[in-house]
Amino acid sequence: MSGTTSNEFDEATAVREIGPGRYTGTVVEGWDVRGNPHGGFLLALVTRAMAAAVDQADPLSVSATYLAPPDFGPAQVEVEVLRAGKRQSTISGRLVQDGTARVHAVATFGTLSAEPPQRLTADLAAPRPLPPPEACPSTDVIDREGLGPVDLHERLLVRFHPDTGWIHGTPSGNPEMNGWMRHAGREPDLLGVLMFSDGMPPSLYEARGRQGVHTPTVQLTTHLFAHPAPGWVQGSFRTRVLADGFLDQDGELWDSAGTLVATTRQLGLVRTWT
Amino acid sequence: MSGTTSNEFDEATAVREIGPGRYTGTVVEGWDVRGNPHGGFLLALVTRAMAAAVDQADPLSVSATYLAPPDFGPAQVEVEVLRAGKRQSTISGRLVQDGTARVHAVATFGTLSAEPPQRLTADLAAPRPLPPPEACPSTDVIDREGLGPVDLHERLLVRFHPDTGWIHGTPSGNPEMNGWMRHAGREPDLLGVLMFSDGMPPSLYEARGRQGVHTPTVQLTTHLFAHPAPGWVQGSFRTRVLADGFLDQDGELWDSAGTLVATTRQLGLVRTWT
Repeated sequence: MSGTTSNEFDEATAVREIGPGRYTGTVVEGWDVRGNPHGGFLLALVTRAMAAAVDQADPLSVSATYLAPPDFGPAQVEVEVLRAGKRQSTISGRLVQDGTARVHAVATFGTLSAEPPQRLTADLAAPRPLPPPEACPSTDVIDREGLGPVDLHERLLVRFHPDTGWIHGTPSGNPEMNGWMRHAGREPDLLGVLMFSDGMPPSLYEARGRQGVHTPTVQLTTHLFAHPAPGWVQGSFRTRVLADGFLDQDGELWDSAGTLVATTRQLGLVRTWT
Repeated sequence: MSGTTSNEFDEATAVREIGPGRYTGTVVEGWDVRGNPHGGFLLALVTRAMAAAVDQADPLSVSATYLAPPDFGPAQVEVEVLRAGKRQSTISGRLVQDGTARVHAVATFGTLSAEPPQRLTADLAAPRPLPPPEACPSTDVIDREGLGPVDLHERLLVRFHPDTGWIHGTPSGNPEMNGWMRHAGREPDLLGVLMFSDGMPPSLYEARGRQGVHTPTVQLTTHLFAHPAPGWVQGSFRTRVLADGFLDQDGELWDSAGTLVATTRQLGLVRTWT
């Protein structure tokens, strides 16, 4: 599942088996947004431990619940095989620090063929119109309202659709976020796609500006359909409802060849930065 | 969470505590499709056991993996509280028969207010155009290609959009399924909505006809945003990709007042009836 060249992402998500169903890894600084370890990074870390414990190489579906904010530093991932099958296996994993479960995930692994998935209808699975990455502004242009840059963006590179308004302080009112993502110095793979499934700033920002708000993920489910081609991965995310302090966010990820490689959906909290 | 009047659905999903974190229930005949216990019914059954073990009444997010087909008869549901909080609690549950886990679920419970959720944009959360239930054909009209009626449809009532083609053997080619659902003799509640989130025949049928195919669910995640108003619940489901024998299906559920009460997504297998 890992890329051809080990790099910072591979090192940061590395795990080591320390006993039956028990792995150790590290919640590394630099993969965070203002001190909050990134949800997509944590998903990749837990998925690596789960992958080590099943026969099949490819995550087909990963569903995670974020129970408590992790701290930087060592973490254990405890896995339990729920069903080991010939074609698919399902496993749960929990990231634990100081005896407290921080992230819980359930994943089904199988084998994705080299064939791109069949689109049942072209329009439902086709990528949204988006200029090439070199024509899209990077995270450097974000109007940070006095807050500093986000360390994560040195590792997770993001390019925004040129019409994106909130990055200049002028949100369009339309709760959609479109752009490109890749890891610095690394081609995408399924583990990268998992991280990208929570890889862009919240689509809520384009609806109403940032307003000092962040949206910690409660639940995130990503289904993966194909190995991504090399290059940037395109993401499109939208929020439909705000209910009782929660919001939804729905997204699709296409590779550089226009193949729908994953869909993702999350339930998040709406919180003010403290 | 249950309706005001106990009825067949409430009886069929009833669970009884038999020890710490252990419940017993029954996979009842009649809630199946040709001998296969219905995924939405199983989801409701497991969720009732999980609900009994947490302080909060309302499921906000339920994510299930279907590990092995259950048999009719007694089942145990083993629950584990992953995090008990004041506002939200997360719990896992697994339905076990003969020592084998058949369904595994993780749910986050909280409290939904009486206020309907705010739509960030009207078009993204508005119900699809659909004539009233009395103008929509029921499951009785389905061209069954020699197979008998489905017992489930005496309990889970479904009305199809009048343009639905596959029910007459003439699928439109568009992989969408739109219609109304309700339980016989029972107003909807969150548990009903969970069942409805897998409540309509696969949208794949409208793309290419039934062709002797069924689509057992592998993974299903439903997010719930509001208590449904009395009356029929509207569902809209679509399939975008077929990949390596898997398909996705994405859906929204609105109550009779037009409130988006839930979104749902599943990964399913494409199988031929044997």
